[in-house]
Amino acid sequence: MSDHTKLKSRTRADYPFILEYRTRWSDNDMYDHMNNSIYNFLYDSVINTYLIEHCGLHPPTSEQYGMVVHSHNNYFASIAFPACAELALRVNRIGNSSVTYEIALFEKGVNSVKAVGEFIQVFVDRTTKRPNLNGMSTPLREGLRSILIKSHL
Amino acid sequence: MSDHTKLKSRTRADYPFILEYRTRWSDNDMYDHMNNSIYNFLYDSVINTYLIEHCGLHPPTSEQYGMVVHSHNNYFASIAFPACAELALRVNRIGNSSVTYEIALFEKGVNSVKAVGEFIQVFVDRTTKRPNLNGMSTPLREGLRSILIKSHL
Amino acid sequence: MSDHTKLKSRTRADYPFILEYRTRWSDNDMYDHMNNSIYNFLYDSVINTYLIEHCGLHPPTSEQYGMVVHSHNNYFASIAFPACAELALRVNRIGNSSVTYEIALFEKGVNSVKAVGEFIQVFVDRTTKRPNLNGMSTPLREGLRSILIKSHL
Amino acid sequence: MSDHTKLKSRTRADYPFILEYRTRWSDNDMYDHMNNSIYNFLYDSVINTYLIEHCGLHPPTSEQYGMVVHSHNNYFASIAFPACAELALRVNRIGNSSVTYEIALFEKGVNSVKAVGEFIQVFVDRTTKRPNLNGMSTPLREGLRSILIKSHL
Repeated sequence: MSDHTKLKSRTRADYPFILEYRTRWSDNDMYDHMNNSIYNFLYDSVINTYLIEHCGLHPPTSEQYGMVVHSHNNYFASIAFPACAELALRVNRIGNSSVTYEIALFEKGVNSVKAVGEFIQVFVDRTTKRPNLNGMSTPLREGLRSILIKSHL
Repeated sequence: MSDHTKLKSRTRADYPFILEYRTRWSDNDMYDHMNNSIYNFLYDSVINTYLIEHCGLHPPTSEQYGMVVHSHNNYFASIAFPACAELALRVNRIGNSSVTYEIALFEKGVNSVKAVGEFIQVFVDRTTKRPNLNGMSTPLREGLRSILIKSHL
Repeated sequence: MSDHTKLKSRTRADYPFILEYRTRWSDNDMYDHMNNSIYNFLYDSVINTYLIEHCGLHPPTSEQYGMVVHSHNNYFASIAFPACAELALRVNRIGNSSVTYEIALFEKGVNSVKAVGEFIQVFVDRTTKRPNLNGMSTPLREGLRSILIKSHL
Repeated sequence: MSDHTKLKSRTRADYPFILEYRTRWSDNDMYDHMNNSIYNFLYDSVINTYLIEHCGLHPPTSEQYGMVVHSHNNYFASIAFPACAELALRVNRIGNSSVTYEIALFEKGVNSVKAVGEFIQVFVDRTTKRPNLNGMSTPLREGLRSILIKSHL
């Protein structure tokens, strides 16, 4: 199977963390489907919810926070307001200061995946806005490890 | 009680239609609470979900659709990502072509209301972009009537 | 003239501060005009640009910042992507800790106003999230005074 | 030079179509820089403005419209409200029904590029939501060709 085929056959079971997000009226564009840019908003939301609830992140004060340095997304099918979206999250790789998330968007009640993307974040110190020589903090690393899927693709 | 006091004491029981919306990362502004403009996005979303599911509205093709001509909102307390919001809807007035919605935003698990606002929509014909002489269509009127609260304030 | 008629006849000359904002693809809804909630985003943007550039506000660190407690908006005509919007700002009232802004949205190249609204902000201390007994700081008050229009309506 | 290094050294001269977009208050996230998801909104906006103004696209009625099937983005440096962004567009590849856009984001008054990404759109028929056997229409192809840069990277 090609990478594209593998991603397109992702199921909810491939992801350890899933949250439901109701779509909003403004998510739809003039073609009556959710605008492609909204996917990134939802990816960002499930990532940050996980970081806050399971990795000790507190955005207004944490010593380290994540900056997105790369994102990509493959769109397989569309979804439209007022459907409910399910955002599914896993970690594909953890480096010294960086983490690669994989995120999938499903529609509630529909089996096949709508889109799969990756975000790469680099954790930087709030004061210097640069990565720490010792890498990401222990709570971040441990929280991310618990949703790390070893065999990528 | 002043109007302001009455609105501030609204409870979920004052509203016949309630939907839950998970907040998104991008909803927060730099002060770590949901930006005031996002409330209108959510008000619009609960209104349009009701119109689609209970009043026969099909945005891409319906002969009539609603245009917002007035909106106002009173903010009593803040809410912040990643909380879940509950959007509560009622109709306060139905005219020939116009409808006045009242919408309240609650935070899941919190009793007191965060904000209460009104939207006034005028239903226009898709072809003319003007109200129909006969007013809004019967399915719209009947759907809206079923969440009309007679005693305003 | 009624208030509504007066607002509908507003011109650019009624506002001392005007900024141009290009509309975005996602601003349009399925009816091919800018979604009503986007107006509030733009009102917020011209207000905060004025506060940053002329009133000494620095959102991440300022001792005081503004919280919106009330907003309302009247929509007279629509605007659609990819038009350019012109956001026009004035202050209608300054209290001890509060300020009432009036904002109008024009379309570049079109005379008549599209929408006029008001935002009421209360300046609060960052530490307490409550208004200061001495009211808003001097740089805020002086900056706001310079776009105060005495004769409301 | 690696691809990453080449992209990071992009200048405005590498792009035949540039539009200025003022950032909005809501674009900033809690870290006082523009949220990464907003880049996609702006990429979409400059692409669709070009399609409307130079390729005959009329979103509410055109027989063909573009669906994004892939997007990626590399973030090199941040930008923050209230700065003005300059969105620069070129076409890197034209297929039978698909087009690959490259978009760069600059900050007004700053030389170095902030981010460079690609969007791949497939043009589909409005009625079937599938690509036409004859590919994209002639006005689309001709409009896109005039900003095609032959030597990719």
